[in-house]
Amino acid sequence: MSQLGFHDFAGSTVVHSVGGWCALVGASIIGPRIGKYTKDGKSKAIPGHSLTLGALGVFILWFGWFGFNPGSQLAASSGADIASISKIFVTTNLAAAISAIVTMSVTWIRYKKPDVSMTLNGALAGLVAITAGCAVVTPVGAVMIGIISGVAIIFGIEFIDKILKIDDPVGAIGVHGICGALGTICVGLFSADAEVGLGLFYGGGVRQLGVQALGVATVAAWVIATAFIIFKAVDLTIGLRVNKKEENIGLDIEEHGIESYADFEIKVM
Amino acid sequence: MSQLGFHDFAGSTVVHSVGGWCALVGASIIGPRIGKYTKDGKSKAIPGHSLTLGALGVFILWFGWFGFNPGSQLAASSGADIASISKIFVTTNLAAAISAIVTMSVTWIRYKKPDVSMTLNGALAGLVAITAGCAVVTPVGAVMIGIISGVAIIFGIEFIDKILKIDDPVGAIGVHGICGALGTICVGLFSADAEVGLGLFYGGGVRQLGVQALGVATVAAWVIATAFIIFKAVDLTIGLRVNKKEENIGLDIEEHGIESYADFEIKVM
Amino acid sequence: MSQLGFHDFAGSTVVHSVGGWCALVGASIIGPRIGKYTKDGKSKAIPGHSLTLGALGVFILWFGWFGFNPGSQLAASSGADIASISKIFVTTNLAAAISAIVTMSVTWIRYKKPDVSMTLNGALAGLVAITAGCAVVTPVGAVMIGIISGVAIIFGIEFIDKILKIDDPVGAIGVHGICGALGTICVGLFSADAEVGLGLFYGGGVRQLGVQALGVATVAAWVIATAFIIFKAVDLTIGLRVNKKEENIGLDIEEHGIESYADFEIKVM
Repeated sequence: MSQLGFHDFAGSTVVHSVGGWCALVGASIIGPRIGKYTKDGKSKAIPGHSLTLGALGVFILWFGWFGFNPGSQLAASSGADIASISKIFVTTNLAAAISAIVTMSVTWIRYKKPDVSMTLNGALAGLVAITAGCAVVTPVGAVMIGIISGVAIIFGIEFIDKILKIDDPVGAIGVHGICGALGTICVGLFSADAEVGLGLFYGGGVRQLGVQALGVATVAAWVIATAFIIFKAVDLTIGLRVNKKEENIGLDIEEHGIESYADFEIKVM
Repeated sequence: MSQLGFHDFAGSTVVHSVGGWCALVGASIIGPRIGKYTKDGKSKAIPGHSLTLGALGVFILWFGWFGFNPGSQLAASSGADIASISKIFVTTNLAAAISAIVTMSVTWIRYKKPDVSMTLNGALAGLVAITAGCAVVTPVGAVMIGIISGVAIIFGIEFIDKILKIDDPVGAIGVHGICGALGTICVGLFSADAEVGLGLFYGGGVRQLGVQALGVATVAAWVIATAFIIFKAVDLTIGLRVNKKEENIGLDIEEHGIESYADFEIKVM
Repeated sequence: MSQLGFHDFAGSTVVHSVGGWCALVGASIIGPRIGKYTKDGKSKAIPGHSLTLGALGVFILWFGWFGFNPGSQLAASSGADIASISKIFVTTNLAAAISAIVTMSVTWIRYKKPDVSMTLNGALAGLVAITAGCAVVTPVGAVMIGIISGVAIIFGIEFIDKILKIDDPVGAIGVHGICGALGTICVGLFSADAEVGLGLFYGGGVRQLGVQALGVATVAAWVIATAFIIFKAVDLTIGLRVNKKEENIGLDIEEHGIESYADFEIKVM
C-alpha cells in the first residue's frame, strides 16, 4: 500500500480502524449486555455512571491528541518540521471542534434535544477522522472532514445499534472504525499536498481516492479475519464472557474484587 | 484605549471581566435558583455535587492558564520571547498560589474553618487577576496581586450573594468580573515595564493607573449595556429560564434527556 | 553526601523518601482509623470512594512526572541537554509502565485477581524509584528498576499493613519511602554514567552502591528523628487526631464544614 502512495499520517486506519474492526468482531461474538435489547428487538440505552467523568475523559483524549498527531511528525529540528507541527495542531483541533458542533446540532434536530453523550463521541469522531490527513489537508479541508465525521458518527452508531443490533457500549465501532475509515478516504478528497498526492477536490482526480479506499478495505479485511479467529479461539477455550450472575454483580467486584464506587448507594435498575 | 496606553496582556479585562459582567447581568435577570434565598431574604448555600471534581476542574484551569498566559506572547522565536514566557510562568503561578493561600487563611479566620470551595475560587481569582499584568510585573508584584485578589474574592462573592442578593452559583461575577477588573487596575500599580508605562509603586505616578481604570470602566459600561439588551431580548422572546418543574427535575434530564449520574441515588433535598 | 558522589537526580530520596518516612512516623503516632483492625489484630481493607478518580489521579501524577523528571535537567539550551531530557522521558515512562505490569501480574497470581488499587500504586512505585536514576540508567536499567519497585510495593505495603500494623490509607510509606529508598540504591546497581559513578552491574564495583545506601540511611535517620519530634510536639500540644465522633462524621464536614459529595447518599458502613 505504501508503494501505491497510501497516506495515513498518524493512523486513522492503522491505529483507529484496526481498533474499530476488532470491536466490531468482538462485540458481535460476545453479544449484547443483559437488558440491552427487549424481546421484540428494541434497543434500550444503558447510560454510563457519570456523564461528567465521560466528558472529562473526552477532553483528556482531545488534549492527548495534540501529542499524538503533531508528535507523529517525529522531529522538531527544522523550520519545516515546526511549520508542519503548527499546521497539524490547527487541523486537528478544527476537525474535532467542528465535528462536535455538527453532531450536537444534528442530534438537536433529530432527537429534539442536544445529545451530550453523542456530542462527546462527535468530538472523538473528528479527532479520529483527521488523524490520517492532518498533515496534508488545509484548514478548510479539516472543517469538511469534521462535518463528515460529525454526521457519520450519529448514523453509524444508530446503524450498529438499531439495524445490526450489535451492543457497542462506548461507540467504539462508530468512532474508531467508521470514522477512521472515512477519515482515511477523505485524504483522497481533501489532500492539498502534491508530494503525497492531491485529493479529488484539489485537482488530483480519483487516483489518491482509490488508493485510500483500497488501503482501508485491505486493512479492514485483514483485521476482521484475524480478530474473528482470535476472538473465536478465546471464546471456545477459556471463554470470552462472564456468566449472568457475574454480569449482574458487576465486573468490578467479579473480576477485580473491589467496588468502583465504595460508599455510594447504587440504584437497583 | 490602546492609543492611551491601556495594557491588558492576556485579557483580565477583555476576556474575564467581559464574562463577569455578562454573568452579573444574566444572573440578575434570570433570578435566584429555587430555595436559594429564604422568605426573609437570607442566603442559603447550595453546594455542588462533588467537591473532588470541583477541585479537579480548578487544577485543570490552573494548568490551562500556563498555555493561556505564556501562550499570549504569541511567539517563541527569540531569546527575548523565551525570557518573557519564562517570566510569565513565574508571575502566573505565584499569583494563583498566593491568592489561594490568602483566601484559605482569611476564610479560616472569618468562618472558623478553611473554606475549600472559596479557596478554589481564590486560586482562580489570582489567575484572572494576574492575566492583565503577567508580562510586566515583577514576582513581588505578582505576590501583591495575589494577595489583593485572594482577599477581594471573599468579600466580592459575599457582597454579590448577601447584599446584592444575586445568585451566582459558581462565583463567576466575583472571579471573572471583580478580579478581572482589579487585576487590570493593578497594572497601574505594579507595572515595572517602562515601555508599557510604570505603575504607581514603580515610580510611574498615577497616569497608567488612570488609564487602566478608565479601560476597565469603559469595557464594563459597554458589556453591561450590551448584555442587558441581549438577555432581556432573549427573556422576552424565547425565554431565559426553565419552569419550576423543569428546574426541580434537573436540567440534565429536562434539557438533554439524560441523567448526569446514572445508577446513583440522589438525596431528596 | 554530595562530596562522596551520592546521586539522586530528581529526588527519590530528598523528595520521596522524606515524604515516606514522615508518613511512617505520622501514621504510627496518629494510629489506625476506626475499624481498620479487628480486635484480634486482623487488617480490614477500607477502599476509597471512587476507584475511577483514584486511577485518574495516578494518571495525572504520571503525566506530571514528565515535567518533574525531565524538568530536573533544568536547562534545554544545548544538544546535550535535549538528549538527556529525551532519555529521561524514556526511562521514566518505562519504569512506570513495567512496574504497573509487574504489580498487576504478581497480585493476579497472589490474590487470584488483578488488584486495581495496588496496580495503580505499582505505577507510582516505578515513577518514584526511577526518579533518582532517570538520567544515568539505560532503558534496560529502567526496566530492572521497574521490576524491583513493582514487586517491592506489594510486599512493602503488606508488611506495613499486616506486620507493622500501621494504617497507611494511600500506601504512602510503601510508594514514597520504600520505593524511594530502593530507587536511590538502584543507582548503585544500574548507573551507566561513568561521571556519576558506574553501578555494580555496569562494572563500577560496590563503591557507588555503598554511597547510595549510606545516603538513603542518612536521610532516613534525620527525617525519622525530626518528624518524630514534630509530630509528638503537635500531638501533645494542639493534638494530631480528631475525636471519635468527628472521625465518624467525616473530616469534610468536621474540618471544612462541607460535604465532599453533596446530593449523593452515602452507604452506612
